Amino acid sequence: MKEVTVGIDIGGTNTKFGVVDRAGNVLFHDSIKTQQHEEFSDLINDLVKAIRDAIAGLDGSYNLVGIGVGAANGNYYKGTIEHATNLKWKGIIPLAEMLSKPLGVPVLVTNDANAAAVGEMVYGAARNMKDFIVITLGTGLGSGIVSNGKLVNGKHGIAGELGHTTVNYAGRYCNCGKRGCLETYVSATGIKRSVYKLLADHLEPSELRGISFDDLNTKMITEAAIRGDIIAREAFEYSGRILGTKLAETVAHTDPEAIFLFGGLSLAGDLIFKPTIKHMEVNLMPLFRGKVKILPSGLQNQAAPILGASSLVWNHLEEKNQISI
Amino acid sequence: MKEVTVGIDIGGTNTKFGVVDRAGNVLFHDSIKTQQHEEFSDLINDLVKAIRDAIAGLDGSYNLVGIGVGAANGNYYKGTIEHATNLKWKGIIPLAEMLSKPLGVPVLVTNDANAAAVGEMVYGAARNMKDFIVITLGTGLGSGIVSNGKLVNGKHGIAGELGHTTVNYAGRYCNCGKRGCLETYVSATGIKRSVYKLLADHLEPSELRGISFDDLNTKMITEAAIRGDIIAREAFEYSGRILGTKLAETVAHTDPEAIFLFGGLSLAGDLIFKPTIKHMEVNLMPLFRGKVKILPSGLQNQAAPILGASSLVWNHLEEKNQISI
Repeated sequence: MKEVTVGIDIGGTNTKFGVVDRAGNVLFHDSIKTQQHEEFSDLINDLVKAIRDAIAGLDGSYNLVGIGVGAANGNYYKGTIEHATNLKWKGIIPLAEMLSKPLGVPVLVTNDANAAAVGEMVYGAARNMKDFIVITLGTGLGSGIVSNGKLVNGKHGIAGELGHTTVNYAGRYCNCGKRGCLETYVSATGIKRSVYKLLADHLEPSELRGISFDDLNTKMITEAAIRGDIIAREAFEYSGRILGTKLAETVAHTDPEAIFLFGGLSLAGDLIFKPTIKHMEVNLMPLFRGKVKILPSGLQNQAAPILGASSLVWNHLEEKNQISI
Repeated sequence: MKEVTVGIDIGGTNTKFGVVDRAGNVLFHDSIKTQQHEEFSDLINDLVKAIRDAIAGLDGSYNLVGIGVGAANGNYYKGTIEHATNLKWKGIIPLAEMLSKPLGVPVLVTNDANAAAVGEMVYGAARNMKDFIVITLGTGLGSGIVSNGKLVNGKHGIAGELGHTTVNYAGRYCNCGKRGCLETYVSATGIKRSVYKLLADHLEPSELRGISFDDLNTKMITEAAIRGDIIAREAFEYSGRILGTKLAETVAHTDPEAIFLFGGLSLAGDLIFKPTIKHMEVNLMPLFRGKVKILPSGLQNQAAPILGASSLVWNHLEEKNQISI
């Protein structure tokens, strides 16, 4: 019997799940709407049924060894989702327990960026690295830090919140309640806010002047920048300068081999990588200069959240084996 | 035969060393002048002789199991001191090799702040912690980060340089070549610079107006503050505000249980702790508030650098044992 895991990514809109083998092959994947369910337990019931059906429907004989879940505000130590801002269910949700009971396997929970970091280590571009960082650029900015080959979870299971380090103490308002957080500048929402700031400050014509804040997205800004739109190009320059400058501070903490950029904004390639690298280098303490790579994630595809979540299980099993040798 | 280690702290002025047992008892300690030697190898020869004499002179029978060295710019992976700014010997010094050959035991090298962090874990106030940070406040500001119960060395062996994160990009000039580094504000030198800035900006009388920059030290500033000197008190308030504000960023990286303040400035107690705690709390992402303690080091004594360095060896031996079980 071949061992498989299930990776689940609970997002505000969709809950994606997939059956994954040790080599990172996604044998089956599907998606259900997250918030169409009245109670969170209804979502769990649907998920449990879908997972059972998926494994039963596979060609051959498979043994489910564990489930990994990535979710905003996922707590690794407690197996809970705590006060998620992107879900309608509030408070503390005992997710691991709710999934583990009917399926009879261990369930590991972490936040989506930490799952991405473990995914990068197990299946991605960090397979031979022990010290690296993954920055996920989605609606917000998430981060997962790996040191000594292990995910840094921290004392309370909430390490890696670089999105809420401060760029400007009198800066943009953030969902977290603070001002000037990195993610208010560097994320899908952040670059949109920057475009609007630049449109306000400058006189240059821009194709983005015809698009409302609600309609504007990263893809439009990227395409405009590729076509040479000055405001769009400057918005990437501005984002990269702020990201690179802050990453220099992060390097001084954990001295990583590489920092991987994952998701939305990172797909713009040189537009975001060039200014990020330039401004990180300039702001690094000289001892670190020329030593730290900024690279695209090795998991830039649809299945990445599922792979990231499932990798939690493989990583956990391997750590257990290591200790019991 | 009882096992002992030797801890060595190579400073710009003195090289302190001591023989330490597993319980943290310093059985013998002494000090030699670092830079009175012409060649670095002369310092090593003197040290080797002094260590042999020290162990031979102890009551009872002892087995030296290893040597730990803390030194500015010490590189853990390479066992070297690299481009130290506080020593007259430049370039890369193969310290571990030079000590290990004549004494026939493993030699572990790290920077002084990392040694302090391991010391805190082995003998100090972090004995039951797996995620914490030590900030050493000396001439500069050093830091050692522990995550998952292990020192974060980083890919290049130079993690934990919080002294060179940036407070103000157009701020004070730093020895490292950058501007506005944390240690130019928060350290023995930093608070002195702050006193001089405050004396320049304000009209208030202060007993510190009669002391030259060269003569002024942390002890004088502390004593003046205790006597109610407004400028001295404001200098502590200013240092604590800057330190606390930056520590909020650090917490967002590794989510520690506690941050320990060690050395010079930290001996001023509430004068530095109160503003540091206050400004860290205010600047923390709400998720972290009330969770992270700022505490005095448990190794606030003369022998701390020796204990810190020797603890590298015990820590190393215990990690080896853990893996081989």
